[in-house]
Amino acid sequence: MSIIYLDWAATAPPDPEAIAEHERIASSAYGNPSSDHAAGRAARELLESARSRAARLLGARPEQVIFTSSGTESNNIVLLSLLARKRAGEVVVSGIEHPSVYEPARLLAEMGFAVRFVAAEGNGIVSSERLHAALSEKTVLVALMYVNNETGAIQPVRELAQLVGESARRWGRAIHFHSDCVQALGKIPVDCGTLGVDSASFSGHKLGAPRGAGLLYLKRPLVPLYRGGGQELGLRPGTENLPAIAASVLAIERHAAGRGHAGEADDAARVAGSTASGAGGPKLAGVALPAASLEEAAAHAAGLKRLLVERIRSIEGHRFIPEEVLYEPDHYSPFILNVAFPPMPGEVLVRMMSDRGYAISTGSACSTRGQKHLRVLSAMGVEHDLAFSAIRISTGYSTTVAEVEAFCGDLGRAVASLPTGARR
Amino acid sequence: MSIIYLDWAATAPPDPEAIAEHERIASSAYGNPSSDHAAGRAARELLESARSRAARLLGARPEQVIFTSSGTESNNIVLLSLLARKRAGEVVVSGIEHPSVYEPARLLAEMGFAVRFVAAEGNGIVSSERLHAALSEKTVLVALMYVNNETGAIQPVRELAQLVGESARRWGRAIHFHSDCVQALGKIPVDCGTLGVDSASFSGHKLGAPRGAGLLYLKRPLVPLYRGGGQELGLRPGTENLPAIAASVLAIERHAAGRGHAGEADDAARVAGSTASGAGGPKLAGVALPAASLEEAAAHAAGLKRLLVERIRSIEGHRFIPEEVLYEPDHYSPFILNVAFPPMPGEVLVRMMSDRGYAISTGSACSTRGQKHLRVLSAMGVEHDLAFSAIRISTGYSTTVAEVEAFCGDLGRAVASLPTGARR
Repeated sequence: MSIIYLDWAATAPPDPEAIAEHERIASSAYGNPSSDHAAGRAARELLESARSRAARLLGARPEQVIFTSSGTESNNIVLLSLLARKRAGEVVVSGIEHPSVYEPARLLAEMGFAVRFVAAEGNGIVSSERLHAALSEKTVLVALMYVNNETGAIQPVRELAQLVGESARRWGRAIHFHSDCVQALGKIPVDCGTLGVDSASFSGHKLGAPRGAGLLYLKRPLVPLYRGGGQELGLRPGTENLPAIAASVLAIERHAAGRGHAGEADDAARVAGSTASGAGGPKLAGVALPAASLEEAAAHAAGLKRLLVERIRSIEGHRFIPEEVLYEPDHYSPFILNVAFPPMPGEVLVRMMSDRGYAISTGSACSTRGQKHLRVLSAMGVEHDLAFSAIRISTGYSTTVAEVEAFCGDLGRAVASLPTGARR
Repeated sequence: MSIIYLDWAATAPPDPEAIAEHERIASSAYGNPSSDHAAGRAARELLESARSRAARLLGARPEQVIFTSSGTESNNIVLLSLLARKRAGEVVVSGIEHPSVYEPARLLAEMGFAVRFVAAEGNGIVSSERLHAALSEKTVLVALMYVNNETGAIQPVRELAQLVGESARRWGRAIHFHSDCVQALGKIPVDCGTLGVDSASFSGHKLGAPRGAGLLYLKRPLVPLYRGGGQELGLRPGTENLPAIAASVLAIERHAAGRGHAGEADDAARVAGSTASGAGGPKLAGVALPAASLEEAAAHAAGLKRLLVERIRSIEGHRFIPEEVLYEPDHYSPFILNVAFPPMPGEVLVRMMSDRGYAISTGSACSTRGQKHLRVLSAMGVEHDLAFSAIRISTGYSTTVAEVEAFCGDLGRAVASLPTGARR
């Protein structure tokens, strides 16, 4: 059965060019980059070339880019490095973080750190007031993601990183600001050099690369917990996964996540501007890679999202989460839409739509087990029953108008097919 | 320039079938195995099928097999899980471990654990006497690798695991026995069910799979330090790298590392037996995969090693490390040979041979930086100058007699080309 795939936030369908790059490197440059012979040196040169390209894409210096195995590992490296420091302190983490930040933060709490989880506002965005109130002179680390993976809410990372920096300077201390940028890269501009963060995480497979490579921007080196052969400047041990690294860097490049796109205005305004440029309506066929620009892909996604919203508004009982996506679309990633049809469980709707040939999800694929996916929506004040009904629709560059139209038609029929008792 | 590759212990040249499997899965089964739609379920089924096949190959139950990103990560998960227990204790680690066991052990020491490093005998093998002397009623974990990556010395893991188990029972306690089996899998029989270990680490890329997948055998679950979305029974977070996992399991299968080969007699005897069956001399063309049996490949390697030893013995100034490889070849992996031509630095010889088109190494690729490679040989009592001169030659299933002959000829010429002062 062919699938209409609307779960890009979980993982992207493969980019054939990235797959080909993986195969090419795996077949030809198989030397261990740490080996001192010609095969090793050839691999090492490719690795450093990939690092330089990644650095350029992220607005970083090459020595600030560490290759890991995944975004999850990148997040863990930063949070758990606190354990290696052997002195406790306070940690401030938003309540809407991905499990790969939230769960390590809970471990830190078990290990003696005071961890404060900051709730988001009802619109899914963490306010400077709440974050500021959670800071103290003992704060050693703050973690705030850039784009929320369930609602698409774009967090004011630049503004809050500045606020944290000001507090730290006032106290004459350093506070590490970490941002999980996995859902931001290739979707909205990301420039580590001007974002004001001390570290940021990225993942290749969310952009169509085969799995196996994450990236970690580190403004300055830290002391990692995982140890081994000293690879990646001693920050991430294990034989470097050169094929996945090369494929991931290519996939990022093909999304045109260039430094040139960032640092000019605030991100929301830029997404808004690109939305306007797509006013002629989304293209039928999606955006071909390499994208002419990040803005082109974002404009296409924004058009698809407007179409999704328009069609879903005509389905009885819909509830967008948060409702602000209707009134302030620029504050949300154009690639993600969250909606509920209470009291219908999101899980049931996901399966009904799967049976009809569509791939959507209830939230993070990393937390579908055990209803942990309710945690993020709860942290923005969404009541339990509504959160329980939530589904996430996420598009990508190749998603077409026809796919969205077909999905909305079948979604309406699926919701209407329910016994009346299941609807409001 | 085409390379004669004799550095298989660092990483194996790609197995084209494993690369093709990776590409096939990456292209077709791209769903996130944690997703609840058809694409996710299809990926999940492939993942569990791979787990069952891996379990069968390792002599384990499926729920005892965890997929990680690398052997290094597998080792780290086990050692650093002690930190999550929040009570210190004593740790016993052999001094000849790979950096991915040795360095986490050093971290444990920094974090308050008493860590005892047990030296090997001069023959590169850890004795039951020394291990026994290091144990105490406070010991919580013992780590002893199966096949040493620098000398090929096969450690008496089964015997020492039994000894540790007896001590633990006498003290009414549990002592976790971990074995890094990265250089054993696909080379000598490994049967986790009868080896007596509580955990064991494996890596796919050492057998020709693309990088990105390690395996971890866990007799019983443990509490991991890295946290995230609950994948791999909560033991290893991050979107499962299904393509690399499937390719790795295929690569292991193709090495015929079947359970049926293990648990019958002690390993050294079986390698010896297989050596005898190769008495007609090694084949010119290497062993084609899938190997008819592990024994066939081991016999081929043993033949190549005899040839290497014979040719190198005619080169002036050679010193095998340890010398016991000459008299007790059955106690060493047939795939690895360590030799030195003092006072010529191993590093210089590696480069000279690289210039002549050969890939060899000074020791672990994971520790070539900063002369850390001297640590393993030092832990078996090799004097500094000799260790400094060591080179490692490691072969694989496709290595041919012609390659070894050519290598030995050029090695002899390289050594002879040195100014007399550089030789004894």
